[in-house]
Parts: sequence; C-alpha cells; structure tokens
Amino acid sequence: MADAATYTAPVDDYAFLYGEAFGADLVARATDGAMTAEDAIDVLTAAGEFASEVLAPLDEPGDRVGATLVDGQARLPEGFADAYQALVEAGWITAEAPESAGGDGLPTLIQNGLGEIWNGSNMAFALNWMLTAGAIHALDAVASPDLRETYLAPMVEGRWTGTMNLTEPQAGTDLGAIRTMATPNDDGTWSISGQKIFITWGDHDVADNIVHLVLARTPGAPEGAKGISLFVVPKFLVNEDGSLGERNGVQTVSLEHKIGIHGSPTCVLAYEGATGYLAGELGGGLAGMFVMMNSARAGMGLQATGVSDRAYQRAIAYAQTRLQGPVMDRPAGTTIAEHPDVRRLLLSMSSEIFAMRAMGVLLGDLFDRAESDGTLAMAEFFVPIFKGWTTEESLRITSDAIQVHGGMGFIEETGVAQHYRDARIMPIYEGTTAIQSNDLIGRKLIRNGGETASALFAQIEATVAELTAADSPVAARTADRLERAVGAARRATDAMLGFASSPRDAYSVSVPYLMLLGTLAGGWMHALAVVAVLGHDAPAPADAQRLTEADFYGAHHLPRVHGLAETVVAGEIG
Amino acid sequence: MADAATYTAPVDDYAFLYGEAFGADLVARATDGAMTAEDAIDVLTAAGEFASEVLAPLDEPGDRVGATLVDGQARLPEGFADAYQALVEAGWITAEAPESAGGDGLPTLIQNGLGEIWNGSNMAFALNWMLTAGAIHALDAVASPDLRETYLAPMVEGRWTGTMNLTEPQAGTDLGAIRTMATPNDDGTWSISGQKIFITWGDHDVADNIVHLVLARTPGAPEGAKGISLFVVPKFLVNEDGSLGERNGVQTVSLEHKIGIHGSPTCVLAYEGATGYLAGELGGGLAGMFVMMNSARAGMGLQATGVSDRAYQRAIAYAQTRLQGPVMDRPAGTTIAEHPDVRRLLLSMSSEIFAMRAMGVLLGDLFDRAESDGTLAMAEFFVPIFKGWTTEESLRITSDAIQVHGGMGFIEETGVAQHYRDARIMPIYEGTTAIQSNDLIGRKLIRNGGETASALFAQIEATVAELTAADSPVAARTADRLERAVGAARRATDAMLGFASSPRDAYSVSVPYLMLLGTLAGGWMHALAVVAVLGHDAPAPADAQRLTEADFYGAHHLPRVHGLAETVVAGEIG
Repeated sequence: MADAATYTAPVDDYAFLYGEAFGADLVARATDGAMTAEDAIDVLTAAGEFASEVLAPLDEPGDRVGATLVDGQARLPEGFADAYQALVEAGWITAEAPESAGGDGLPTLIQNGLGEIWNGSNMAFALNWMLTAGAIHALDAVASPDLRETYLAPMVEGRWTGTMNLTEPQAGTDLGAIRTMATPNDDGTWSISGQKIFITWGDHDVADNIVHLVLARTPGAPEGAKGISLFVVPKFLVNEDGSLGERNGVQTVSLEHKIGIHGSPTCVLAYEGATGYLAGELGGGLAGMFVMMNSARAGMGLQATGVSDRAYQRAIAYAQTRLQGPVMDRPAGTTIAEHPDVRRLLLSMSSEIFAMRAMGVLLGDLFDRAESDGTLAMAEFFVPIFKGWTTEESLRITSDAIQVHGGMGFIEETGVAQHYRDARIMPIYEGTTAIQSNDLIGRKLIRNGGETASALFAQIEATVAELTAADSPVAARTADRLERAVGAARRATDAMLGFASSPRDAYSVSVPYLMLLGTLAGGWMHALAVVAVLGHDAPAPADAQRLTEADFYGAHHLPRVHGLAETVVAGEIG
Repeated sequence: MADAATYTAPVDDYAFLYGEAFGADLVARATDGAMTAEDAIDVLTAAGEFASEVLAPLDEPGDRVGATLVDGQARLPEGFADAYQALVEAGWITAEAPESAGGDGLPTLIQNGLGEIWNGSNMAFALNWMLTAGAIHALDAVASPDLRETYLAPMVEGRWTGTMNLTEPQAGTDLGAIRTMATPNDDGTWSISGQKIFITWGDHDVADNIVHLVLARTPGAPEGAKGISLFVVPKFLVNEDGSLGERNGVQTVSLEHKIGIHGSPTCVLAYEGATGYLAGELGGGLAGMFVMMNSARAGMGLQATGVSDRAYQRAIAYAQTRLQGPVMDRPAGTTIAEHPDVRRLLLSMSSEIFAMRAMGVLLGDLFDRAESDGTLAMAEFFVPIFKGWTTEESLRITSDAIQVHGGMGFIEETGVAQHYRDARIMPIYEGTTAIQSNDLIGRKLIRNGGETASALFAQIEATVAELTAADSPVAARTADRLERAVGAARRATDAMLGFASSPRDAYSVSVPYLMLLGTLAGGWMHALAVVAVLGHDAPAPADAQRLTEADFYGAHHLPRVHGLAETVVAGEIG
C-alpha cells in the first residue's frame, strides 16, 4: 500500500480511455496518424513519474508553509523554484504550447490527461503554468510579431511565466466595471494604473520575469465591456536584446490569506504608471481574454478531476490499512475498506472520478476534431458542463475522502483536509458555476434552439441501443437507467426552451440543469466503458471493477437526474 | 443591514414554531401548563441577546487565535474565560440541567432552541457546555450520592466543566477496542492509565476544575464492550470539604491542529496512575455513556442548524449589500441577492435551515411527551435522522454561503470560510453518518419491522390530506410533492425490510435511506408551516416568505428522495 502522501498517476485508466472506451483509433484520429494510443500512454507515464517524484512531495509543504511576501517580493517554499526549473528542462511547458506559438502542440486529449496529473500531484504549483498556458494562448491569438518575439517566446520556452489580470474589487463577475486605466505614452507604449486583485501567481521567485496580461480601460473608451483593452505589462522591462531591464511600475501589495491553495501566491497588484503594450485591437480586451476561455475552463475540470483523485488515493490508502471493528460477512482482519458504508463512499468517489476523467478525454477529442469533423459546437456545449459539474462534485468527493478517515480526517497533519480546502475555490474561479450555467443555457442551448443538446441525447441513446443489444445484466441495468435519465434530460430541456419568454425562470434553474446534464454525461461515460469491457475477448484485470463502478454510478449518481428534472421544470419559485 | 460578523438569534422562527406550526398549545403541553409559547420566546430572546453580545464576538478570534498549549496547560483566547463566567452567572448552565441533578430542567423543546443559538453564535465555545451537559446527564443517571455531591453539583452550578473520554488511537467507532486500564486501589478508588485522543475541551483555563468521564477496562474484565467501565477522573483532586487538592495524574500531551473549531481545545490526554472513581456498575461503561447518546446526538443536529444559519446570515448580509452587474428584470442598483442564481442559493439555504429548526422543535416535543404520550419510539427514530441529515446538509449550506460571496468567500478574513471549516467535523463526531444510519435501520427500523416508520408516514399523509383540503395552489403543489415523496419512502422502506436476510444490502444503502427520510421529514416540516400560514385570519409579515420557502423546498430539495429511493432499492452493488 502506498504512503498516503504519495501520488500515482492514473495511467491505466487513460490507457483504457485512449485505447478502448472511445475506440482504438482515438489518438490516431486526433493526430492524423502521427501518434498512437501507446504513444499517448508513454507521454502520460513520463508525466506521472515526474509528478510523483518532483511535484507531489511539494504539495504538503506548499500548503503548510505557503507563499509569503518578503520586502514586496513573493517567495515560494523551498524546492518550488527547483521543481519549476526541472519542469522546464523536461520540456513540459513547450510540449503543451501550440505549434503556432513555437510549442510542440500536443493534441488536446493528451494535454487533458496531463492536466489531471499536474493538478492531482500539486494543484497550487500547477496553477502557475495553467495561467501561463492561458497567457500563451491569448498572446498567440492577438499579439503583434514584436510582442510574440519579446514575450510569447520566453513563455513558451518556460523562462518566464504569465498571469491574467481581470478582477478588481468592484469588478468580479462583471468585468465591464473595470476601472484600471491605460493612457497612451508618446512612444506608442501605454501607462497603466489601477489595482487588480485575486491575481494567481501574480508574483513569485521561481522564474526570471512575469508577463502580466492586464485588462484596462482607455481614455474616451465606451462604457462597459466594449471599452476594455488587453495590455502586456512585464514585471521587469525588457531591453532591445531581450535581457531584463529595470523593474516596471507594478507592486505586490499583499498576498491573500485563503482557505486553500496556500502554495499559489494570490496577489493584490498595484499598477502605478507601469509601462504596457497593447495586445490586439483597442476595445478588444474581453475578446482577447475569451480566446483562452475554453481551455481555461476545461482546465478547471481537469483540476477538479486531479484533486478529487488525489483525495481518493489518500482515502483508499487509509481504508485499506485501517482496522476498526469486525466487518460484516468478512473474515477477521478485514480493513474498513470493506465496511459497507466505507465501500459505498469509495465507490461513490471512484465512479465519479472515472466519469470526470472520461469526460476530459471526450472533450479533448471534440476540440481536436473541431475543424475536421465539425465538433466545435459539441465541444463548446461541454465546456461549461465539464467545468461546472466536476468542480461542484469535487467538493463532495474531497469531503467524502475526509469522511473515510473519520476523526483523523479533521486533523490537518493527516493531509486529506488540504484537498477539501484546495477544492473550494474551483467552483468559483474561471467563472462561478452560475456563470457556467448561464453560458450553457444562453449561448449553447437557447441560442440554437436546443440543437446541440438534441444531438447529444441522440448519441447517448445510440449507446443505450448498443447496451440493450448486449446480453449482460449490468448492460441491461445501465441501459434502463441511462434511457430514463435521457428522458429526464429531454423533459428538462423542453422546459428550459419553453422559458424563452420568462428568462428569470430559466436562469433560476440553470445550475440544476447544468448538474443534470453533467450527471447524465457521467452516466454515458460509464455506459461507453461497459460497452468496451463487454467487447473484451479475454477479461482484463480491471474489468470487474469497471463494471461495478458503472453499476454503482447508475444506482447512486445517475438517479439524481430525476429530482433535478423536477427542479428545472418548476422554474423560478415565488 | 447587519454587519456580516454579527449574529441574530432566529427568535421569530421559533415564535412561529412554538406558537403556530405545531399547534398553539405546544409549550403548555410539554410543560404541563407551566409555561406558554410566550414564556419560551422570552427565554430564547434573552439567550439571543446574550449570544449576540457575548458569544458571537469571540467566534472569529477563537478561530484565528485558537486554543494553545502553554507549559502543559491549554489556554483559550482572551475573553473566553470572562464569557464563560458570564454564562454561568446568567444561569444558563443551571437552566438546562435536569431537575433531578439540581438544575432548572427547561423542557427539551426549549433547550433545542437554545442549542441552536449557542452553536450559531459560537460553535467552538458551545462545545464546552454541550460536553458538560452530557457529563451531567451521564452522572445523573449512574453516579452514587457521593459522586453526585462532589462532582455533579459543581457542574450543574457551572463551576466545573465535564468531558467525555472515549476515543483511543485504535478505538474510534469500535469502542470495544479500548485499552485504557483501571486497576483497583486499596481505598476503593481506581488507578487509571492510558491515552485518550480527540477529547473536546479536555483542558482549558475557563473554569477551576474538569470532571473527566473516562471509559476504561478493568483487570480480568471480558473482551469487548462488556469489559468497559465508566470512571470519574477529576483534573484536580477534590478535598473532603469540596475544595481543590493537588493535580491528578492526567496530562495534556498536545492539542490537535484541526480544519476548524480552533477555539475548542481538542486534547490528547495521558492518564498515568490517575485517581478515578467508578460511576455505575462494573462493566456498565458503555451503557452509562449511551444514557446521554440521544441528547448528544440531537445536540449535533442543533449545532448543524446553528452553524448553517450563521453562515446563511453572512451570505444574505453580503448579497443584500453587494452590487455586481445588472440584475435581470430588476431596476438598476439591485443587489446580487436578486440575481436568479444567488436567490436560488439563498432560498436553498434558508428553506433547509427552517426544516432543520422545525425538526429540532419536533424532536424536543417528542422527548418531552415520551412518558405521557408514548412518543419515545418516534423520538428515538428521529435522533439518527436529525443528527445525520442536518450535519450532512450543513456541509452544503456552509459551502453555498461561500459561493454567494464569490472569490471573497475563499479569503479567510471574509469570515464565512470559518463555518465551512467548522462544519466539517459534525458528520464525524458523536457517531459518523454511517453510525447514525446503522442505528436507524438496525435498532429503529428493522428491529420493529418498520412499525415506527409506518406511523411516521401515516402522520405525514395526514398532513397531505390537510393540504389537499386547503384551497391554495402552493398547498396543492406541496401536497402532491409530499405524497409522492412518501411513496418513495415507502418503497425504500419495503426494500430495506426485505434486505433482512442480506444485511450487507441494507447497510450499503443505509446512509442514502437516512438522507431520504431526513429530506422527506424536512418536506413535512414545510407542509406543517403551509398549513399554519394558510390558517392565518390576517396575513403575517413572514407569510409570503414561508410559502416561498416551502414551495422552494418542495421543488429543489424534496425531489431528491426519488433518486435516493432508486439507490436504496438497488442494495449493495457488485
């Protein structure tokens, strides 16, 4: 049994997902034949080793010691800077950056496996390059050749990191209320002044420079979102030759004292006449930021999957070693893992985590095939579901992991509590669950009259038909449950579309609707797994567990859709 | 709008519950006419003022500073000792102690209102006398006249506090595994040696002495639970005249570093030849502890209600002052409280809290009428439901309170995070939710063939009939939803009773069954409220909100029973 603090990357699950559950040619299809499922697994195996050896051991010190502000400079705990350098030297930053930006451009479905592993081993640490990746995508889309050469290239090489500066005290969800000002200088640069809050990895000591992407208003710009532009503001100014010059006018005022992710410095940044460079069109700031919205929000789903799995790994490691009382119908010396309710908790966690993980691969595939197969609408339909559903469920999963530990789970030194605290930010940042659900029902559902939703339901029903054709009790149960769940989703969708003339009805139940679709899609993921397992000529070692998890999900999680459908149909109350 | 850190006791809700929802004669019935509903409200009003002025201001410092161990002595933050003395002088400890022990013996249904208020204003602080109350009940049941005079009386007066010493590292849920030894001395006392963990308020500096009730094994005693006896072990030995003598052989080894309740010292205590006094029969230790099990577990439900309400009070105070973006179909300047999804979160919280609060009053009434009306079986049926359901739901409610705050909720200084962290222990201590559910289906359901459950369902159906007779759309909707929910509960109960020959099936879904009954009972509480409101000759100010909350609960919470019933019927998976 592994030590509770260790992390093991779920490579076996990914082998099943890349090689079987979505068809044997999944990776080849996404890469035009350049890579096979085996190649993808090799990538994840290497990442898993790096994560276990380098990142996971820093997770607990990151939480306990946390980031600190010393003389205006954010400092990370010992080992963070070395780990970051090791990450860069191993080529992981460049591997995930798009080819257009000079990176290796790994396909999204493989990046999504990597995203789970980085976050599962050390969420606070992973946030640094998750934000950097976002900055790379944004600059890749809108930056001029000069900005690309000076700022994008060092980020792709991993020498510098990037941040997103959106939030201000009065402007959180409502970015149109931003007050930070950019005024033009004579030399074509801009002078940036204002205060930004909640800036993840807004300052640190693990790389030489930080490229802040800052949303700001310009003189005479229109009110609201259309008046906001995007600026590149480096922590250190950059000389003509690319070397670092003097410190720019941005100060780290304070670090937030948070419930979790203590190893991720969350900064209040004060810009006072800082030199900035316009990226993209004047007034196109929000559009520039939205370029990376899909990948950032999908990244949150991978984070939720990784953190949930880390908490699960601790719970099962504890349960499989802890003895407490006789276990019903089991021999003496059986650990608590076989107590009926502990087993329930463990299966509840593992069956949801599998569904999340599979959905991450599905989503990656949909993006990878967006151009060739026209799957962009479906991919974009899934983004808010994946972000919203996985992050909400991660709260329960990390909570259940504490519950498995009993009283020990409430003690910080046990370690599992960190994941519960870390997870609490996930349904909030990168757009709260409400924002995700509004995106889902507004842009993705009502705007096209439910077309994408219908296509999804039809796909799920095709899987139901496959299950029904199989001669297997588990398949029959799974088919019955999934078919009824699709029925609930169709009723809820019809109600949602019927609310077109009373939008408060729709937006009052948009989160329950999102949770319904997420729960349904999770059932679909298990149904695909059942089909794949039943197709085995010779049984594989994990087959029994996969069928049990599918059956468990169908009996414990999927039935929640029926209550959710009733909630959605009711609309606004009072 | 109140400051977010203030606490307002929910006296209006209790006035409705004591005076209307359960009939106007509820309090008179429980007190044989000695008190009226108005008297009960006067008690709660006074308690609410004390809680708001004295206890609530210490809640945040208790969390931030916490209890510390200095030279082997646990120290509480400044103000805790004074607050405890004020509590004693105001007579609250004595008021709640049973008359048989020299207390005022307030009826349980009023004590349950008080319990919510103490915990809502300062959970960590309230734990001290919640544990003392438990010790008082246990000694009142089993102690000899000498022990009563020497140890029980000072606790009832509030001069000394009490603790419960059950858990050891290898003996948590399984108390039969206890190893602490008590060996007889020549003078009739016992010598206690061993280590106890998780001892709430096991050491402190707010009162002069601590009366530890310690479970220990005696030489030659049988294995397991029957070999365990209960001992009184004071922190300071007591002289003949009742004055304090020398320090007894019990040391505070350490305080636990916990996710929450930092203001409650959770101690590791080492007993090394400490002098103890046998309380009750040899080998009757667990029976002695179980005396106070009902009140301790019901107390957890009150704690969950109080902490949930405190978190809700912060959330609504924030939402009603925070401006962010235009609010759909509302004038400019409308706060986020009217954003559809924020309104959903607030109603989700408040409707559940009302159901919890009402269930606490119901439970108190059932205990108060246990002898006169034969309601003990129903009261004991509700204890695990109330403890299990409210503490599990408190995790969601305190989490939703964070969500309402957006990013600010994740920052410790905002204050709402404390309740989320504090709440996490509630589904664990005083018996985990699994233990509650096993008690429910084992002792309370299967043992009497579902008789109590059937009686409950019949009572709920009587309320359905009352609602159906009323001429009101809300009543009709509530009746329909509640009737279908009872149907789901009956199906689940039949399945549970049918599992008699395969107990792992029953115990694998006992928690979902408990949650089903809790959710159903919550719907019943709202149904009673609807009946009471519709009976008003003239509308009261809170009527509209009560009907909205009932309607909301029926559309958002109650429908969960249908998925839970499907889960229960499935039994063990795999």
